[in-house]
Amino acid sequence: MRLLAFRDTTTDRSLGVSADGISFHPVAALAPDLPADIETLLGLDGVLDRLAGLLAAAGPGRSLADVTLLPFLDRSNAFWALALNFKTHIAETGLTTSLDYPHLFLRTAASYVGSGEPILAPPESVARAFDYEGELGVVIGKPGRHIPVDRALEHVAGYTIVNEGSVREYQMHNRQFGLGKNFEGSGSYGPWMVTADEFGDPTKHSIETRLNGIVRQRSGLDDLLVGVAETVAYLSQGYRLRPGDMIAMGTPGALPPAQDDIEGRDLSRQYGPFPTPGLVHMRPNDLVEVEISGLGILSNPVVSDQPPTYRAG
Amino acid sequence: MRLLAFRDTTTDRSLGVSADGISFHPVAALAPDLPADIETLLGLDGVLDRLAGLLAAAGPGRSLADVTLLPFLDRSNAFWALALNFKTHIAETGLTTSLDYPHLFLRTAASYVGSGEPILAPPESVARAFDYEGELGVVIGKPGRHIPVDRALEHVAGYTIVNEGSVREYQMHNRQFGLGKNFEGSGSYGPWMVTADEFGDPTKHSIETRLNGIVRQRSGLDDLLVGVAETVAYLSQGYRLRPGDMIAMGTPGALPPAQDDIEGRDLSRQYGPFPTPGLVHMRPNDLVEVEISGLGILSNPVVSDQPPTYRAG
Repeated sequence: MRLLAFRDTTTDRSLGVSADGISFHPVAALAPDLPADIETLLGLDGVLDRLAGLLAAAGPGRSLADVTLLPFLDRSNAFWALALNFKTHIAETGLTTSLDYPHLFLRTAASYVGSGEPILAPPESVARAFDYEGELGVVIGKPGRHIPVDRALEHVAGYTIVNEGSVREYQMHNRQFGLGKNFEGSGSYGPWMVTADEFGDPTKHSIETRLNGIVRQRSGLDDLLVGVAETVAYLSQGYRLRPGDMIAMGTPGALPPAQDDIEGRDLSRQYGPFPTPGLVHMRPNDLVEVEISGLGILSNPVVSDQPPTYRAG
Repeated sequence: MRLLAFRDTTTDRSLGVSADGISFHPVAALAPDLPADIETLLGLDGVLDRLAGLLAAAGPGRSLADVTLLPFLDRSNAFWALALNFKTHIAETGLTTSLDYPHLFLRTAASYVGSGEPILAPPESVARAFDYEGELGVVIGKPGRHIPVDRALEHVAGYTIVNEGSVREYQMHNRQFGLGKNFEGSGSYGPWMVTADEFGDPTKHSIETRLNGIVRQRSGLDDLLVGVAETVAYLSQGYRLRPGDMIAMGTPGALPPAQDDIEGRDLSRQYGPFPTPGLVHMRPNDLVEVEISGLGILSNPVVSDQPPTYRAG
């Protein structure tokens, strides 16, 4: 089952469920007693099974093509992300990371848009090394603390796709990533959360990032330095994981450019700290897609953010 | 004027305003039309002036001693914090930081409690280097983007006190601070936000951190490497600052231990990466207070977090 948030002419924000990613039912229509925010909903014992049952018994749904998908998390306590967690990405950057502990930092809600919404590229005068990072997103369902690795996946409600858009110049301003990972609408997640029972073992899946149709990242999800269960268990040593906490599991390295791939070979157009053949920055008018088997496609047009002039409000 | 959130026998969470930090009025009693969450409220033009007028005209208020103060932010988009922003703290750690850009990372809401609530010290088997960090907290009021330094303070609604409690062992697990700055209830802020008009120029104020009554940090707020206006302006280059975004401005270094200060001289009881005379970790049964002139005192007892055994729920 897919859990999603949508907007249409009658609602600014509602939750929906879909079996096939084509039609859906509003949660409020299937179960009017359920809360409207996903964090409270995910905290209810057995709620996903109940919704799946109601969805299976429901008549034909509405078309997802008729609504706008929104980032499905509403007031998440934490958007975690892992740095340097694919061996291919560690190799291409030449950076070091601990082999014992996940490399974790945080993003804000304001740094994400939903699937189909435009991602904002900084104007060139602000920054030019604006990079996609296709990632698996893990959404916590059942809260927990000091979770053993072998129980960790019981606390995952589902999975989503994340594009962890990054502004490299700002990321390198100091030792903590800070603002470079948190530009306005620089990343995205969605289009929905697929429940864990349906997605199954994350390591059996694969990820692919395409820029204007050209595949720029492709990897199995078994190449992670620190896996999903290990990361969930680690975080729960420090705090009580909450329903709706999200963890983006890190991004693979760039694929080598194809024979006829002119742009992927043109390092003179790379402005980041780690020029890599096959890595191409996102620019206005691009279309960026991240696909994960079993989850679907997260697709975003790239548009230029407004000029860097003072705006209050 | 002080803006605060409280709980009592009749409400789980309401906003209040106070002129003196002794008595207060619920916002809903003064202005029933105003929103209940502080982020929406702070986004309303002129709302703080309106509330100040209503407060001045109101009769005697209720006693703050009769309610429990809560962390006053409800669904803040960002809890920013600055690393290595006092020259005395840079010196004691021997670490480097950029001289051109603030050193920024994020915390989660779950990592903070309010004034008077217990701060949670990790059990010793989890971590021992659990440190206070007294800091000035800046609360954004008016949203804005690409804010010039000389207009930046217009976007600050007010100031608060932050204890940015840090678990050093986890902070050093990898290069990004990650979980070490985000243990459950490891920090605090409050007791309220003092409006910017009343607090005035931050650099004219001073900060002091006391553990069990012994002063461990003391500094003027003019010792910052990157000031409030510069940090606000910098962040607004990347995203639209939102009402309720908070920025903790960094912590000063440890004071040298006094002549008769046995514990501050006992480096054998320091477990962090940067043993410093005068730095003493927080432990259960301690009382930690951070005082900033013009803001008041943020006071928290320290209690031991629960044993590190698996808990679901």
